[in-house]
Amino acid sequence: MNKTNPGHFFEDFSLGQELVHATPRTVTEGDVALYCALYGSRFAVQSAASMAMAIGYEDAPLDDLLVFHVVFGKTVPDVSLNAVANLGYARGRMGVPVYAGDTLRTVSRVIGLKENSNGKTGVVYVNSVGLNQNDEVVADYCRWVMVNKRDASHPAPDPEIPDLPDRVAPEDLYVSDGLDMSGYDTTLAGSPHLWEDYAVGERIDHMDGMTIEEAEHMMATRLWQNTAKVHFNQFEQAKGRFGKRLIYGGHVISLARALSFNGLGNAFRLAAINAGTHCNPTFAGDTIHAWSEVLETSSLPDREDLGALRLRTVATKDLPCTDFPLKGEDGKYLPNVVLDLDYWVLIPREG
Amino acid sequence: MNKTNPGHFFEDFSLGQELVHATPRTVTEGDVALYCALYGSRFAVQSAASMAMAIGYEDAPLDDLLVFHVVFGKTVPDVSLNAVANLGYARGRMGVPVYAGDTLRTVSRVIGLKENSNGKTGVVYVNSVGLNQNDEVVADYCRWVMVNKRDASHPAPDPEIPDLPDRVAPEDLYVSDGLDMSGYDTTLAGSPHLWEDYAVGERIDHMDGMTIEEAEHMMATRLWQNTAKVHFNQFEQAKGRFGKRLIYGGHVISLARALSFNGLGNAFRLAAINAGTHCNPTFAGDTIHAWSEVLETSSLPDREDLGALRLRTVATKDLPCTDFPLKGEDGKYLPNVVLDLDYWVLIPREG
Amino acid sequence: MNKTNPGHFFEDFSLGQELVHATPRTVTEGDVALYCALYGSRFAVQSAASMAMAIGYEDAPLDDLLVFHVVFGKTVPDVSLNAVANLGYARGRMGVPVYAGDTLRTVSRVIGLKENSNGKTGVVYVNSVGLNQNDEVVADYCRWVMVNKRDASHPAPDPEIPDLPDRVAPEDLYVSDGLDMSGYDTTLAGSPHLWEDYAVGERIDHMDGMTIEEAEHMMATRLWQNTAKVHFNQFEQAKGRFGKRLIYGGHVISLARALSFNGLGNAFRLAAINAGTHCNPTFAGDTIHAWSEVLETSSLPDREDLGALRLRTVATKDLPCTDFPLKGEDGKYLPNVVLDLDYWVLIPREG
Repeated sequence: MNKTNPGHFFEDFSLGQELVHATPRTVTEGDVALYCALYGSRFAVQSAASMAMAIGYEDAPLDDLLVFHVVFGKTVPDVSLNAVANLGYARGRMGVPVYAGDTLRTVSRVIGLKENSNGKTGVVYVNSVGLNQNDEVVADYCRWVMVNKRDASHPAPDPEIPDLPDRVAPEDLYVSDGLDMSGYDTTLAGSPHLWEDYAVGERIDHMDGMTIEEAEHMMATRLWQNTAKVHFNQFEQAKGRFGKRLIYGGHVISLARALSFNGLGNAFRLAAINAGTHCNPTFAGDTIHAWSEVLETSSLPDREDLGALRLRTVATKDLPCTDFPLKGEDGKYLPNVVLDLDYWVLIPREG
Repeated sequence: MNKTNPGHFFEDFSLGQELVHATPRTVTEGDVALYCALYGSRFAVQSAASMAMAIGYEDAPLDDLLVFHVVFGKTVPDVSLNAVANLGYARGRMGVPVYAGDTLRTVSRVIGLKENSNGKTGVVYVNSVGLNQNDEVVADYCRWVMVNKRDASHPAPDPEIPDLPDRVAPEDLYVSDGLDMSGYDTTLAGSPHLWEDYAVGERIDHMDGMTIEEAEHMMATRLWQNTAKVHFNQFEQAKGRFGKRLIYGGHVISLARALSFNGLGNAFRLAAINAGTHCNPTFAGDTIHAWSEVLETSSLPDREDLGALRLRTVATKDLPCTDFPLKGEDGKYLPNVVLDLDYWVLIPREG
Repeated sequence: MNKTNPGHFFEDFSLGQELVHATPRTVTEGDVALYCALYGSRFAVQSAASMAMAIGYEDAPLDDLLVFHVVFGKTVPDVSLNAVANLGYARGRMGVPVYAGDTLRTVSRVIGLKENSNGKTGVVYVNSVGLNQNDEVVADYCRWVMVNKRDASHPAPDPEIPDLPDRVAPEDLYVSDGLDMSGYDTTLAGSPHLWEDYAVGERIDHMDGMTIEEAEHMMATRLWQNTAKVHFNQFEQAKGRFGKRLIYGGHVISLARALSFNGLGNAFRLAAINAGTHCNPTFAGDTIHAWSEVLETSSLPDREDLGALRLRTVATKDLPCTDFPLKGEDGKYLPNVVLDLDYWVLIPREG
């Protein structure tokens, strides 16, 4: 009997199927330090217990993307081991804060299936939910991937494409009980700019650039126990289309978010991922720059101290963002654009 | 007075000599996170406190090889700083579980000495014991190394070669008090295969490959406070036989063990090292694959819920393991085979 | 409104100005493990809670340089983002021990200003103080940097050069309350050499060499939340004078200190930095060696168990230190000398 995990092929998925993913993981201060070492994040609420407790958290919460990567990593062996492409994200809501010592696990449900006309691949839509040791939701998102069929002759399932929203509604963003921004210190946080200072259409060049090394993205991706083969095996990748290891798209998201501190220093919580595209592959040696555009500003129910910004953050490789590069005249992403992420952040309002 | 450590030469060792090794080390959640980042290990009992506590541990124990590397690293300045070759391991038993916060130290005893016929080197056999802060044994193993003589004219000692067993007897494997596998969840652990599913002679290709970077093996080896010079100094190594830094053999063992999850996902404890050979040197840029063979299956005294598998795990560089590569027609290890490890694992039995 | 941090230019500084630096940071066991992985430090008091508690600490204190780097990193966005050169350090005193879980922040005061005769740059002197969550001083040092002017026509301030001592007086070195060296174990610490064994003028070649990788120095520098652009952005650096990323000088200090264990194994506390020069730039691929000279030995007030050594530690790149390389006949640092650090360590005395 073959004891290794072959991953699921398209015909192995069925609508409504539940996937209980393996390897719960206790996240710790070790992960927090590694996250800082890998991305250089400076958002104060995640950096210092004092800053977090001043606004009502029990302790410094873990970075939202650290939580997302751990939750996401668990889905890889069951969902995307045989994936050809990671097509999109939608309706991603972060939940209760995660603290060092919490244990995370992930459960997914198949919410859509559509075989491609070539008969060789199909698109699988899953809703994945990350839970802590108390079964509270820490992250809840939808993702769709193109997956190979094992056997092209296998009949196609009835196509079912889920109805996914363009964005999470601001009233659905999770705000922790007891959060009170009156204790927030903008000087110590490193930026004077609050919710009222950002206007729809405003674009910010985050200025700084960060070059990626092989050791860094592999350490990150292993830390999330993400087993996608293309990130780790140079011997195989050398024979492939790019000749190189591909970098986990989430690594680029985390770099872009860390770079965005320079201009968005008070956007202390990434509350939702509305959509995301990994526009072009990223490789070791690439230098990542980023810029952001404010897509929407929204108040939050019953909150005078806190607002939400819907942002598009775009990351590039080997291309500074002074001119806010995005798409060419043909409507396609420019070749140096690697990420286009649409998400909500929480940010304090003027008192 | 010269204050730097010259290491011991062959004539500095005497039979029965005790070596109290320096630098006790408190191992923490930081080490656990780094171990995950470096190797991507997914064994659930070490990954999640919940999985460990469900079978009777106080908390998630540290990976057995993390413990082994810390214990081993302490011996290097006294045993192998002037070693020409690391010849073998035997009778390696892991002991009480190690938790974050424990402080480890190592004591060795010289159990064998044999000068080589060339008069320039000799073989030193040591028994090294790792202890926690309560003086409980966490690891206990024998190793022999070839060490340079300082002065070739120094008379040879009476040869004494210890009688070392081929393998640790299964009844001597340490099983933690209070361990009860009835709470073990194979779904969350990521593999349905239990002790009864493995048969002597069965071979498993672990499929995945992992490329090693310089930064990774140096960070790992420093984390174990292992001071062997060949791993760190490119300026010196550039002049040597290989022109490159050599990778600590233990780094390859940890990679092979992590890869072995794919096929041996429930082998939650590496309980003993029976023998080990670093067949060929490994360098940064090499991609490690691994395969395993079941050498022996054994029940354990008074346990219906837990069994032992004796495994041979072989690691290769830049060579997939579909064909289970090992030795050539000449009986020698193939040039791409880098590790041949004989060890015992504990694995749950059918309930 | 531009929301990114442009950094301060020379004309933005005024004498007596207070700079409250952003991003307090809770340091943890994760940082301690990473520090070990990055530098391989083996000083026993920082390595093991047992060794620290045996001499009166509550727990293993964090490495003094880890504390220094965190405190220093916070000053970069306000002090040296537009710096042309890091000119020197003086009167650096380490304070109360820092333990995992402490939260550090930094406040600086401008203590000197002098415009350069070219009218394009000026020298800014700051006194930076690192504080823990109880407002106790953990580090207090002066640094001066050459900073660009935004506008060369801006009038020069009255020059003010602070009077800085050549060295911290030994009676001003901070010794923790309750420290009692009678419980110190030289065997476990890995060196028999105590304060009495070191003589003024003695020089020690620390023997070992450590090659630096890009991933390592970037992970370190991000861990300190140090945002100096030259360390991270290969795309920009490729166009610059060196064509390569520059390594944070503090990374070299930590490597040199870790290497100095071999010869100074009982110098368990780096108590003060008297002066320091980063003589030449360091790049990934360089192999660091180090040597030290004893500049001064001093007893400490009311202490029979503890003394101080004033050391010069010199680090080189791609040059072993057998001959104690420092300066050429022209009085200038040799091109392979990268660090000249003058500092005090605490070390046990004979009982």
